Amino acid sequence: MILTLLTDYGQADEFVGVCHAVARGILPADTPIVDITHGIRRHDVRHGALTLRNALPYVPVGVHVAVVDPQVGTERRALAVRCADGRVLVGPDNGLLSLAWERAGGAVEAIDVTRSQHRLEPVSATFHGRDVFVPVAAQLATGAELLDAGEAVAIDELVELALPEPRFVADVAVAHALLVDGFGNVSLDLRHEHMLALDLTIGARVEVASGGRSAAATVVQTFADVEAGELLVYEDAWGAVALAVNRGDAAATLDIARDAEVRLFRA
Amino acid sequence: MILTLLTDYGQADEFVGVCHAVARGILPADTPIVDITHGIRRHDVRHGALTLRNALPYVPVGVHVAVVDPQVGTERRALAVRCADGRVLVGPDNGLLSLAWERAGGAVEAIDVTRSQHRLEPVSATFHGRDVFVPVAAQLATGAELLDAGEAVAIDELVELALPEPRFVADVAVAHALLVDGFGNVSLDLRHEHMLALDLTIGARVEVASGGRSAAATVVQTFADVEAGELLVYEDAWGAVALAVNRGDAAATLDIARDAEVRLFRA
Amino acid sequence: MILTLLTDYGQADEFVGVCHAVARGILPADTPIVDITHGIRRHDVRHGALTLRNALPYVPVGVHVAVVDPQVGTERRALAVRCADGRVLVGPDNGLLSLAWERAGGAVEAIDVTRSQHRLEPVSATFHGRDVFVPVAAQLATGAELLDAGEAVAIDELVELALPEPRFVADVAVAHALLVDGFGNVSLDLRHEHMLALDLTIGARVEVASGGRSAAATVVQTFADVEAGELLVYEDAWGAVALAVNRGDAAATLDIARDAEVRLFRA
Repeated sequence: MILTLLTDYGQADEFVGVCHAVARGILPADTPIVDITHGIRRHDVRHGALTLRNALPYVPVGVHVAVVDPQVGTERRALAVRCADGRVLVGPDNGLLSLAWERAGGAVEAIDVTRSQHRLEPVSATFHGRDVFVPVAAQLATGAELLDAGEAVAIDELVELALPEPRFVADVAVAHALLVDGFGNVSLDLRHEHMLALDLTIGARVEVASGGRSAAATVVQTFADVEAGELLVYEDAWGAVALAVNRGDAAATLDIARDAEVRLFRA
Repeated sequence: MILTLLTDYGQADEFVGVCHAVARGILPADTPIVDITHGIRRHDVRHGALTLRNALPYVPVGVHVAVVDPQVGTERRALAVRCADGRVLVGPDNGLLSLAWERAGGAVEAIDVTRSQHRLEPVSATFHGRDVFVPVAAQLATGAELLDAGEAVAIDELVELALPEPRFVADVAVAHALLVDGFGNVSLDLRHEHMLALDLTIGARVEVASGGRSAAATVVQTFADVEAGELLVYEDAWGAVALAVNRGDAAATLDIARDAEVRLFRA
Repeated sequence: MILTLLTDYGQADEFVGVCHAVARGILPADTPIVDITHGIRRHDVRHGALTLRNALPYVPVGVHVAVVDPQVGTERRALAVRCADGRVLVGPDNGLLSLAWERAGGAVEAIDVTRSQHRLEPVSATFHGRDVFVPVAAQLATGAELLDAGEAVAIDELVELALPEPRFVADVAVAHALLVDGFGNVSLDLRHEHMLALDLTIGARVEVASGGRSAAATVVQTFADVEAGELLVYEDAWGAVALAVNRGDAAATLDIARDAEVRLFRA
């Protein structure tokens, strides 16, 4: 089975490389390892959870490690969770995995791997990616039984992540910036059906406001449907309603940080 | 066949990882994927085209995806091009692939894969790397027939990229900054034969001028042939005449941006 | 055998990708390549040497390329060194490999591969990763004999790296910042036994001073054992005594650059 990694380790240090090395010491040589991303913002559990959830439908069924772990070395549990669709998720029990198992049909079995027999000994206090999550995941990807990887936990004891919900006040959608990508594109907690309900279809002109700023935008399908420098509202590649500036940076233009409230209404 | 990727997606987001995941869902487990680079400057088609052309002679014959695609989601074609040397290039029809097929002996067959049967459905408007280019390329690397990947296009209809040409005025070479790498080394559109014609051989002292700035340099073989902080003119690892500062940054020193005119003459 | 890479090439350019491509043209398809890191600070031989030494115990025995090479293109030797534990290290003879072979039981055989039959011809003056180190290493990982890769060198002729040593003046440890990672965590040249000798055990309060700055810290096991923003002294994942700020940046807080003297004493 394929092994995938998603972390907030970044690429500047050797953390990711050492995780690969540990996995390679366990996996058969022809098992692929895929790095979903290591660019999750440091300690941003929700960024990691949303990214993992979005990516998963494009990833072959396998063992999926995620590490965004501000509580590393404390009593927070280390988990391996089997999903209804056969995927196994491995990571800290802080909500990071919860959107992914929801997307994967739900969690059907959970194991606390904190003291797994597959750990590297001695376990450091600060690098559980290397010492716990990756070796456990690599053993599972190589055929080890999930039940033998630790102790069973009740699924309703697992930490779940809450997301903001958009509100609709008259004809105004009060949404939230869920994700801001490296190009400054902003994913909102709105989807296609909300746009239909607001009668915002392709070609519609909308006003977008956040904090003290606002700007006019057009609802279109892709960046190049508006002039360079103009704001657009579109359905992004993960199915979320999103803001972008063609050849520009929407987050910077509207000064939108993650979690900011964003109001949309017909111009 | 090996699959290679070159994009302007960067490493901060999950775009590259999702492309790998899609490819892994199609390729045999032991097919290598090589990331040529994902550091092409955003939307800089020429940067991508030159980088792909330079790298290709060092890359095993395979299927080579390149995505630098400011017109994604518009009517620009998506291409798969077979080269005389057996390589298959996959990417948007905006000139990005043209220097590579020239280097690979010329294009011998071109297919419009915009509506390829190998696409992921539904195709998003903004992420054709995931939905079109990588799945088509992975099928081709796995043995699918090129002809079955879309509709044939005449090769003379493909978009080709034009490069600047150096001029020679008396003993002055008026060249251009084709590429600036991450260390500030500047590749010019001059080659060994130009230097010979200008009588600039190893050891020669030259004056280098760009914009309002100029500096003296020595023609040498490698960085350490001059003192730290000194400007050198050398043949870079791709065979281009280039400027560097030993342990420094030539682009910053001379304030040279890509495409700047650079004048060289014997001091 | 597995092939690993560690360089100061960064991820912005195609240097790493071209090294992978060259290796893939030589290695069997199912030989894994692991990137330890390409984030070594440019030309910082000691940063590379320490990182390689730290990572090695987690890496399967294989052929390990390291390139941090300010003298590329000069007369410095290119080496392949067999270690007592079976690893083969490949890189420039500038001390970069020396901490690794020490960690791997010592060097038992050294070959000068500067003019190896496995080089790519012509060898560029500035990119020996592509033209010398990677092709030589890939041939060795594929089964080529070390002796056939170049000319034998006496082990006592190899360049070795010197590290600073901590001093102990009364109850004050005068240590050095050996490494600063991307999160601002600072590894010192102190280890567990020094802390015991100083009677600095879990829970102890210490004063940490460097340059004109100082701050109180607690000796703990992990980041979350102190409040956000507080300084901690802990044993890092490589066994070194280290400084961190929970959810912050210790190097910035105390203005510690690599090599800085850091004084620790019981508060």
